[in-house]
Order: sequence, then C-alpha cells, then structure tokens
Amino acid sequence: MAAFCTREQAMKEKNILLDHGSGGLAAGELISGLFLEYLDNPVLARMEDAAVLDNPGGRLAFSTDSYVVDPLFFAGGDIGELAVNGTINDLAMQGATPLALSLGLIIEEGLEMEVLERIIASIARACRYAGVEVVTGDTKVVPRGKADRIFINTSGIGVVPEKADIGANRIRENDVILLSGSLAGHGITILTSRAGLQVEGGLASDTRPLHFLVQRLLAEHGTAVHAMRDPTRGGLGTTLAELARAGGLCMEIEERDIPLRSAVRAACELMGLDPLYLANEGKCVVIAAPEQAKEILAAMRSVEEGKNSRIIGRVTRQYPGRVVLTTIAGGRRLVEPLTGDPLPRIC
Amino acid sequence: MAAFCTREQAMKEKNILLDHGSGGLAAGELISGLFLEYLDNPVLARMEDAAVLDNPGGRLAFSTDSYVVDPLFFAGGDIGELAVNGTINDLAMQGATPLALSLGLIIEEGLEMEVLERIIASIARACRYAGVEVVTGDTKVVPRGKADRIFINTSGIGVVPEKADIGANRIRENDVILLSGSLAGHGITILTSRAGLQVEGGLASDTRPLHFLVQRLLAEHGTAVHAMRDPTRGGLGTTLAELARAGGLCMEIEERDIPLRSAVRAACELMGLDPLYLANEGKCVVIAAPEQAKEILAAMRSVEEGKNSRIIGRVTRQYPGRVVLTTIAGGRRLVEPLTGDPLPRIC
Repeated sequence: MAAFCTREQAMKEKNILLDHGSGGLAAGELISGLFLEYLDNPVLARMEDAAVLDNPGGRLAFSTDSYVVDPLFFAGGDIGELAVNGTINDLAMQGATPLALSLGLIIEEGLEMEVLERIIASIARACRYAGVEVVTGDTKVVPRGKADRIFINTSGIGVVPEKADIGANRIRENDVILLSGSLAGHGITILTSRAGLQVEGGLASDTRPLHFLVQRLLAEHGTAVHAMRDPTRGGLGTTLAELARAGGLCMEIEERDIPLRSAVRAACELMGLDPLYLANEGKCVVIAAPEQAKEILAAMRSVEEGKNSRIIGRVTRQYPGRVVLTTIAGGRRLVEPLTGDPLPRIC
Repeated sequence: MAAFCTREQAMKEKNILLDHGSGGLAAGELISGLFLEYLDNPVLARMEDAAVLDNPGGRLAFSTDSYVVDPLFFAGGDIGELAVNGTINDLAMQGATPLALSLGLIIEEGLEMEVLERIIASIARACRYAGVEVVTGDTKVVPRGKADRIFINTSGIGVVPEKADIGANRIRENDVILLSGSLAGHGITILTSRAGLQVEGGLASDTRPLHFLVQRLLAEHGTAVHAMRDPTRGGLGTTLAELARAGGLCMEIEERDIPLRSAVRAACELMGLDPLYLANEGKCVVIAAPEQAKEILAAMRSVEEGKNSRIIGRVTRQYPGRVVLTTIAGGRRLVEPLTGDPLPRIC
C-alpha cells in the first residue's frame, strides 16, 4: 500500500493522542504520513503486519534491544540513532551483516509530534548511513504517566558469512585483546548531561554502527577472529569479565594501552566514575589469534570506526575466569563485573 | 554459556531492582536463573547479544509487536501468552511458519518477582505449544513511575513456503471472505475486566497461535488463498476496511454469518460496544478464490483453532474501497474504519 496521507495530515495534532496507537485511522495516518515519509522502502510500504524478505542464504543472526535512554537527545546522538546502531552492533558482534530492522515504539500520550518526527528522521538517517532498512514496525500509545515519553525496540536480522566462527568458546590462551577506540564516550555523555555538567573539551556519545569494521575484519582475517563483543551497559570491565568467565581463562589488560580521551578522563575523575564500567555504543572488543594480531590491528585501523584501535591485553591462564588490570602506576588489580548500575537508562 | 545460577539465587529479591537491568551481575543472574530456567534452548543458552540460526531457505518473514495490555493477567490468557501468539500470528498472516522469537522486556522497578516469573512461565508454555523458541532477548528496568509494571516486545522470524503468494494486492472480485471463529473475545474480556463487570456465561480472551491453521490451508490450497489478516486492534471492521482500501474493492459481509458467542453479544450490548471493532487475538480473516471456498472452509474447520470458521461475505465492486454490512434485520450499512479507540492498552 502506498502512502495515503501526507506529512501535514499525519502531523495535524501537536501531540500524540491515544488514538495514534489504536490500530484505527489515526494510527494509519501516522504510519503512512510520518513513518513512511522518512523510512520509505518497498517492503515497509506494503504495510502488512510482517515483512517478507528474500532469503540471501548463510546462517541467520537475530537480535533485539529496547532503548529507554534518558535524555532522548544528547551530544553526539539521540535515542533513534542509538536504536539503529545498537541492534546493528549486536548483529555485527556475531559477524553478521545486517539484513533488516524492525521498529517497535511505545509512546506516552502527549509526546510532542515534533519530537517524534526528529526521532524518526534520525532513525532514517542512521539507516541510510548503515545501509539497512526498517521493514516492519509497531506503534503503541499508553496513557500519560504510564511510560516516559518514548521507548524504542529495534530487532534485527543479519546474515553470517560462512567462514565466521565467533563465540566466547573459541577464545584461546595467548589470544590478543583489541579495542576499537577510546572508552566511555557514551556513558559519560549521558551521565554529565543528566547532572547538568559542562566539561571542557566537549563530550559526545560514540554511537556508531560497527558492521563495516566487522566486514573488513572477517573478509581479511576470517577464522583468526575468535570473539567480539561491544562493551555497552556494564562497560569494558563487565564485558571482559563475562568473556573470562565464559572461556574459563584470564583476561590481562594494560591500563596505559586503553585509549581514553582527556575530556572523558576529566569528567570521570570529577564524578568519581571508573571508565571501565561506563557504556560504549560504537566500540568493540576483538579477541584474536596472536599470529595475526598486527594484521588485524591494521585492518581495524583502516576503517573510520576503528582508526584508534589498540591492542590492550592478552588472554592467559593466570587467574582463570578473571580480569586483571595492570595500572599505569604498575600495580595490578582484579576487575570485577559490575553488580548493578546506580544510574539506569543509559541506553 | 550454561546457566550459572539457580532460580533461587535469581529470585532472592522479592521485587525487581534497577540493578536487574544494568547489564551487570544482577542482570546476568536474572537471565541465567529465571529466563534460562524456563526458556532454555541451546541458542538462547549461549547468552550472546544476537542469536545465530541455521538458515532453512525460503523467503523470510519478519515481524515485531509490543504488548502493553492492562491488566497483565485476564481470563483466557496473560501478557506473556499474548506476546508469543500475537507475533506468531503476524508471521502466520504472511503464510510463514515461525522459526524463532526474540523477547524484549521493559520492566518498572519494583515489579514483583513472582509476577515476572508467572509471565516468563506463560511465555515458555505458549512457546512449547506453538513449537517455537525464544532465541535472543533484552531486559531494561526503568525507575518506578516511568513505565507501567511491564511492557513486552516480541519480534519473530518465519519462513514463507514457496507457493504462498499472499497480500492485499491479490484480492479479486468474487473472492469469498472467511472468518476462523467467533468475534471479539479478547477485546470484550479486557474491557469488562477493567470495568469490573461479571458476565453470565463467562468471557475469555481468544489468544491462540494461528500458524497450524495457516500451514494446513497453504499445504492444501496454496495459491487459492489471496490474503489473510488477523483482526486485532480495530477489530474485523477496521481490518476489512483496510483490505477494501488496499484492493480498491468492496467487502460485503452478512451480520447473520458472523459467529458471536452469546456472552460476548450480551456484554457488548451492556457496554454499548460494537463487536466489529473489538480486538481478536486468535482469529483470522481469509480472502480466497471462490472456486475453492468449500474446501478451504473444510480445511480451516479441520484444525482446533478454526473449528467455528464461517464464510461471512464476498468481494464485489459495489462500493469500491468500502465495507458493507447486511444486518440481521436486512438493512445495509457502511462499516467505516475505526478512527481511534476510547480504551487503549487492549494488547
């Protein structure tokens, strides 16, 4: 079905009404006039309750993530861009190239229509940049006070190339640990924004899709890549702790090799936060065979998203299931997984 | 990764804490001890951020739906069962057999752990009945007052058989309109429950998966099935109005042929509601070639979910793009699509 109403018709109310989530005419106008206006593609335009896609072959990756970040807009991004990149990255960490995204919105009655449009436009932009489309969606509206403005779920399907074999179970002793860039950009941006802090040098979320980097890695180094994770909630510390536990090996990392922007370092010190536990939304940890470490590092650095990649450590048998950090001062400490998070809604 | 903690450890708190959504240890315990306990399967148990699935071939169907129903538990079902069946049905309406589901939870801080367990157990039961698995998931917790207990998103992948060619664009003049059973069971159950009404004869949601019925139909009658829709939000009236508009044809239906349980009829009269606009969660409308109408009706009736199927009307050119109802009294009226819905959160 083609769009049957214009953006102006869809946006005639200043705020979201309960009717916009009813499955009736008002909902249809919102989908047709606003969502199709920005996210138009032949599959979504059919407006069926499920998309039908050609099957490209290869194993399938499937992932889901809900986004409840507060504030909705922040330096370097917004909830819409985050929702696109975050789910792409979950697919990419399995070696997959994203094939299609779904978009599920839960909107609080009264949300400004203009805010919704900014978010949808941002989703459309992030999709174009990443080369992936929203092919199916759903909109629910709940009464005022029953949600906080807007929550977004994106799910994604991807295709895993034949030669990729990625998983925590493939981590081996002596593997190198690589990180694709500087730490904690997303987490510290959200936290300082909520605290109303201005930081010299500027902070910005690092939200970015990682599948281009992963495609490059896998095309050139296929099976030498053993495991990949994007250290989002819980940060690098928690991600490495999970990998250590899953593989039963020790992750030894060097603080001096972990890239950290000076503004991020300053803000972390000011707020008493450890950047090892802050969320990243455009970084990945790669665990790879030591024989190809140099080539893998060069491949990661050859793409924009990985230009600041570093080797930050090595897999050993020192403390099985644990993460050990050698500090800049030369001391060593265990990095425990985060138990909880004092500040929720980081993503 | 195998489950690393027991149900007792995961359930040691009586209520959900913000920490359960942090990506840290508390979140891991909840996933491992509660979600894996009920939803265990080898793909989910890997606990990676995306599932990797073997590709069965065939075109892929992909769908998403968020569930915000209030109350969470109702006669005949609950939000968990609804979330499984609803997304299966969106896939089934494209002719697809479900391959895998994702599960995205947005939980309000303070939700009783026991309530969460009941919902997860219900999801597990519905999955077993339908023969489909949750292979990937995500949990977010938002502070008290920022959501209403729990919202669930399920997305699903399905496989569309080669011979299926289903869509509103395939509807032809003289096609028959079939309905798989009695109307309005889900909608009226939720609405009377919220109003605190007791209805003689008993009301219950009709939540049910429809893919077994669809498989039977397509195996036996492949291309004679032109379009299928499940009349959820907006009800049969809105669904037919959408199909009429999409195909540019007229949907003529007979009130006397539309199955309606007497308790549902009584409750609708009491509340002044039109059952044509109330949500169904286990029914489908099938538009099919007239030559095979009898065989298709028999096939639908041969499965439990379709045992009360009826032919309820026919596609004509009388009023292009409109729905016409012949009432029991013999009058005729146009059935307009629902504009809004006075009572949200029906699903």
